[in-house]
Amino acid sequence: MTTGRLETFSDGVLAIIITIMVLEMKVPHGAEFGALKPLIPVLLSYVLSFIYLGIYWNNHHHMMHVVHRVSGGVLWANLLLLFWLSLVPFVTGWMGENHFAPAPMALYGVVLLMAAVSYTLLVRATLKVEGPDSLLARAIGLDRKGKLSMLLYVVGIGASFYSSWLSGAMYVTVALIWLIPDRRIERVLGVHPARNQGHVT
Amino acid sequence: MTTGRLETFSDGVLAIIITIMVLEMKVPHGAEFGALKPLIPVLLSYVLSFIYLGIYWNNHHHMMHVVHRVSGGVLWANLLLLFWLSLVPFVTGWMGENHFAPAPMALYGVVLLMAAVSYTLLVRATLKVEGPDSLLARAIGLDRKGKLSMLLYVVGIGASFYSSWLSGAMYVTVALIWLIPDRRIERVLGVHPARNQGHVT
Amino acid sequence: MTTGRLETFSDGVLAIIITIMVLEMKVPHGAEFGALKPLIPVLLSYVLSFIYLGIYWNNHHHMMHVVHRVSGGVLWANLLLLFWLSLVPFVTGWMGENHFAPAPMALYGVVLLMAAVSYTLLVRATLKVEGPDSLLARAIGLDRKGKLSMLLYVVGIGASFYSSWLSGAMYVTVALIWLIPDRRIERVLGVHPARNQGHVT
Amino acid sequence: MTTGRLETFSDGVLAIIITIMVLEMKVPHGAEFGALKPLIPVLLSYVLSFIYLGIYWNNHHHMMHVVHRVSGGVLWANLLLLFWLSLVPFVTGWMGENHFAPAPMALYGVVLLMAAVSYTLLVRATLKVEGPDSLLARAIGLDRKGKLSMLLYVVGIGASFYSSWLSGAMYVTVALIWLIPDRRIERVLGVHPARNQGHVT
Repeated sequence: MTTGRLETFSDGVLAIIITIMVLEMKVPHGAEFGALKPLIPVLLSYVLSFIYLGIYWNNHHHMMHVVHRVSGGVLWANLLLLFWLSLVPFVTGWMGENHFAPAPMALYGVVLLMAAVSYTLLVRATLKVEGPDSLLARAIGLDRKGKLSMLLYVVGIGASFYSSWLSGAMYVTVALIWLIPDRRIERVLGVHPARNQGHVT
Repeated sequence: MTTGRLETFSDGVLAIIITIMVLEMKVPHGAEFGALKPLIPVLLSYVLSFIYLGIYWNNHHHMMHVVHRVSGGVLWANLLLLFWLSLVPFVTGWMGENHFAPAPMALYGVVLLMAAVSYTLLVRATLKVEGPDSLLARAIGLDRKGKLSMLLYVVGIGASFYSSWLSGAMYVTVALIWLIPDRRIERVLGVHPARNQGHVT
Repeated sequence: MTTGRLETFSDGVLAIIITIMVLEMKVPHGAEFGALKPLIPVLLSYVLSFIYLGIYWNNHHHMMHVVHRVSGGVLWANLLLLFWLSLVPFVTGWMGENHFAPAPMALYGVVLLMAAVSYTLLVRATLKVEGPDSLLARAIGLDRKGKLSMLLYVVGIGASFYSSWLSGAMYVTVALIWLIPDRRIERVLGVHPARNQGHVT
Repeated sequence: MTTGRLETFSDGVLAIIITIMVLEMKVPHGAEFGALKPLIPVLLSYVLSFIYLGIYWNNHHHMMHVVHRVSGGVLWANLLLLFWLSLVPFVTGWMGENHFAPAPMALYGVVLLMAAVSYTLLVRATLKVEGPDSLLARAIGLDRKGKLSMLLYVVGIGASFYSSWLSGAMYVTVALIWLIPDRRIERVLGVHPARNQGHVT
């Protein structure tokens, strides 16, 4: 089985998730700028979630780039990841419309944490197929960034009941950590391969 | 005619169906965890339908992998399958919002049954093009899993008027039967072909 | 310029149009089968429009199969077609919710007519690039089916003010004419080319 | 890293944005043509935004056609562009539902301006990878059209507080400037390369 359709389907789902989130920003009734004011927390939530989904797409893109084969386990781990990411618009809307209240902040973190756990499962399922000497194994290494992210999510979930600001700071920090694109894979590859569908090296 | 665009279009429709289902989970007005309680049956319905659509995508993926040519009949059987699957978000929402009441449970089963019948028609239309000695014919064999699923759907539909639990148990059982990926095709292929768009062996 | 991305984008838009239509079928409040009754005209409209969009995707698929190059004119004619098709969910919803009243029936026909005109423009723009001796030119021929469809749409639009049934009969007839896949292109090609992305013959 | 998945994902997001905009056109309750009258400004806004998104897709398509490699910077510049374009349905709806009132007209211009700035950043990030002697560098040249567009957006934003007509005229003018497909790239290429995924010539 090849990665082609896995990528097409994942791209489709990610593209839809990232786009339907904006539907939570309901068109206001007034025609003045003041009418937009209640939408500011919704917009901020949208921006954060957009960045998160961009990061997932980006890393998924990088990972699949060094993957040659997929197994049934990979397909299902990928679906599990997409399931948790599909809940992002819901928690984003809940968080934005309630001005970052404790419960929505905590749930936002839980969904992000579960997505991160699913991503880790996806990496493991892929490594099982690719083997310990594969490009992917070398690229992932100890996965410090992944582990740190999960820790920050847990802190953010716990902090949400004391301070929404602290909780939000945790989630923003994770986003910033990953905004720097995953150079690990680029480093291992050394060069940017030419545009050549089907080739990897 | 090649399978390329059939797969792209099907992936697109399946990706959208699987994602718009989550729009049925309306963001609640309250900001406490209690506000989520009425959403639990909606979420459970969503999870079940997500798994079903994942299974269909998975099996579609496997099938198209061993298919080399498509006919007009295949295109239309595929559209019929997509039509029934496009009704899944509707019946999922109806079932979830009515806490698994008899009528929605029955209709959910009917839509799943029709999707299964359409899938069988798609397999037959494809076999007509591929021939009885094709990889696909060997992979499908007697299609015991497919026949058992349809039987369980019928039982589930009938049971829905007596017990929602029994009915739901039937639908969950079918999902579990298929969650185990369709190893039949993997077995016939023997090896995982390398990532090579356009090749099949 | 190649047809690859034109097909991907068109497939994406068509997949979304065909799928968001189902969102017009709002989940009813009651939990009995009776609650579905008001949805029957909405479902019937959906089925008709689903078939229409399936036909467009099918024919688009067939046409692009024998096209080798696209021009700016082709891209814009394609966007014009997608624009009119994007209005199909709106007119489908208006028609279904008003139980096939005259004005929605007429507007439904207008949108279908404009889509047919756009498709004809797309064929012409493509023929300009491909030339009069191309496979496509031979496959399209006099385009009797296309011309008959447009005539039937005009009759259907006019009839809508006298009889919704007659108007609807016209639209169903056009769908039936096209449900038979466009064998013209298959006939010219003679054989089904093997699954081979990038090749046409 | 190749452009393949960047194009697939961008096509997906653009296809969804262009299509969900039509959801702002809510099905009216009345069944006469008069019930459509309040929708005319919404439809006009939709047409303008559809053309804009068509132009972006078109130019994106042209640009990626001469690009061979993508970097992390290109991926993020592309996501920034998609972010601003994802706000187009929101501002389109706000503008249409308020009959082109000053504030929505200004915000519409701001979103278009930010999308144009993001596109310029995307071009620069791509040129960094491709180099100053690349096909893309020659095709873009001084980017007079891009600079003129941004100037017209700024004028349109300022004008919105005095005259919605003048503001709208600016936005329509930009669309007309770009409706003429970007022949710069076609000119540099000289010939239309045959349909051959992966080749650029």
